[in-house]
Amino acid sequence: MTSHESGDQTNTSEDVSPRGEYTRDMRYITTRVTADGRDGYPVETDRYRLVAARACPWANRAVIVRRLLGLEPVLSLGLCGPVHDERSWTFDLDPGGVDPVLRIPRLQDAYFARFPDYSRGITVPAVVDVPSGQVVTNDFRQITLDFTTEWTRYHRDGAPDLYPEKLRDEIDEINELVFTDVNNGVYRCGFAGSQESYERAYDALFARLDWLETRLTDQRYLVGGTITEADIRLFTTLVRFDSVYHGHFKCNRNKLTEMPALWAYARDLFQTPGFGDTIDFPQIKEHYYRVHTGINPTQIVPKGPELTNWLEPHHRENLGERPFGDGTPPGPPPQDERVPPEGNVGSSS
Amino acid sequence: MTSHESGDQTNTSEDVSPRGEYTRDMRYITTRVTADGRDGYPVETDRYRLVAARACPWANRAVIVRRLLGLEPVLSLGLCGPVHDERSWTFDLDPGGVDPVLRIPRLQDAYFARFPDYSRGITVPAVVDVPSGQVVTNDFRQITLDFTTEWTRYHRDGAPDLYPEKLRDEIDEINELVFTDVNNGVYRCGFAGSQESYERAYDALFARLDWLETRLTDQRYLVGGTITEADIRLFTTLVRFDSVYHGHFKCNRNKLTEMPALWAYARDLFQTPGFGDTIDFPQIKEHYYRVHTGINPTQIVPKGPELTNWLEPHHRENLGERPFGDGTPPGPPPQDERVPPEGNVGSSS
Repeated sequence: MTSHESGDQTNTSEDVSPRGEYTRDMRYITTRVTADGRDGYPVETDRYRLVAARACPWANRAVIVRRLLGLEPVLSLGLCGPVHDERSWTFDLDPGGVDPVLRIPRLQDAYFARFPDYSRGITVPAVVDVPSGQVVTNDFRQITLDFTTEWTRYHRDGAPDLYPEKLRDEIDEINELVFTDVNNGVYRCGFAGSQESYERAYDALFARLDWLETRLTDQRYLVGGTITEADIRLFTTLVRFDSVYHGHFKCNRNKLTEMPALWAYARDLFQTPGFGDTIDFPQIKEHYYRVHTGINPTQIVPKGPELTNWLEPHHRENLGERPFGDGTPPGPPPQDERVPPEGNVGSSS
Repeated sequence: MTSHESGDQTNTSEDVSPRGEYTRDMRYITTRVTADGRDGYPVETDRYRLVAARACPWANRAVIVRRLLGLEPVLSLGLCGPVHDERSWTFDLDPGGVDPVLRIPRLQDAYFARFPDYSRGITVPAVVDVPSGQVVTNDFRQITLDFTTEWTRYHRDGAPDLYPEKLRDEIDEINELVFTDVNNGVYRCGFAGSQESYERAYDALFARLDWLETRLTDQRYLVGGTITEADIRLFTTLVRFDSVYHGHFKCNRNKLTEMPALWAYARDLFQTPGFGDTIDFPQIKEHYYRVHTGINPTQIVPKGPELTNWLEPHHRENLGERPFGDGTPPGPPPQDERVPPEGNVGSSS
């Protein structure tokens, strides 16, 4: 997510407490794009650009929600490469190394356009106001909720309700537990500054995964009978688990593939339109293993694990057959947003 | 094995070729302890000390063979701790940090007693002549064969023949393949100086493991119907695979537990007297993760994986019921050589 957190050294004094705990800087730009435009940024077509990176689990949430709700025609997508430089995520995948819409080489340019002295992490996902070139928000927790609740007039026909009113308390509660122990928990393992803080994070992570394993044994999705925001947030960590967190972050009590319900749950979502089609395994691996020189100084990227098992049958439909509730699955991604073949699980690396 | 290879930086210019290949320095002290004493060191009781470390796979071979042949009463065992200093393996586990028989704090003292200018790696296993305090040999390939073929007069009743004359060509052939691609292959993955050399080593390793998986599907042991030197050499790498090589050395196409025949084969040997009772998982993990600062600069030791599955039934007896041929299993280890409870698989770390 941040050039700060992942960009450079894993254990800077500001990120690790005296007890060796990794602490994520949770101060984000909280301006919101809303239907009523109360922060000065009303929902509009062709005005904003979502900037993400295939590698980043936090950005991945926003990319999935945009797909599921069918916002592609009204909210464009800029993609940074997996390996950012010391200063910022960069548009190194684009011709000339410049985003074709924002016309900037580094995401930080959009941050500085609004806050010339911006000193915190240059993070994805970010929503940028195209006319002014200024970042609007990088608050990953709110971005997806606003796609769901503020951008409703532009949702596709058949878009699911990812944050149903009646279930919000339960979704919020699950999200908080999953964030602390799992989404951020894997980082607390990997960036721990001491053996003790690593072991505390490891114990909390696997206790929570055991709890999720039990919860998902008898129900297809985390909350209610359909896909919600809670599933999206868990998925983006699970899909990176065996490829990155298991080895690189030492989350190695077991692989995801060794937890039957969680593994089938993750495959189920992966095989659902809007999830697996946003995943680029080579970019994910390259990001973590090349950027975190503090824990992988050789920058060699592991060739494993094998990935074709993501396509194996999951049989989760027996637990419920309404992934999108009264809605429908999204169609295929726009041609220019498709993950290239080498990112697919058919590839060996 | 060496303070050189594993002791310090993983990629010194002398260990990595211009193409980035890790190259093990294979020049050892080739003096032998023989029945006829032709090198000046005849087989005798209470004269030699085998110096090993629980952590080291190469030393582990010698410890296992000594157990299987029942040489404990005639050849004593000195054990270095898992984390050696820059100069040498040390006797830091012993009271006062001094080996109680050799009366030295560092294994290098025995090397220098014989070769004052010794410049190569101070390695285990080493056989030391106690009266002179001088190292005799550290040639790990020959040490175990000599235990089997030269120390015969001191073998216990019921000792197996680990290197049967008729099978030696086949055993030698297997040993060579396993050494190149597996025993040393995991190091070639972990210490590779480039992405390309890592990937070559990874491909060779898993191709060989696939070949072994097939070979061991229908036969209980590698050569003939009984345990031989070939099994001992493969075992000491397999037992470290999921705990160390999978993550630390990026040998992560799959875990050992994901290769059914090899995993059952490894459990079978682990549960055979003389094998599992020589294994100390915490020492193994501490060694690799704390010593190799070039690939694990944080020195944090992973808490996983879980180990109790090493004790699960393997059902390999259906493939053959003569692990020791006409011989018998060894008894339990001498009281003072038992791996402490925290080294057992019942422990979670």
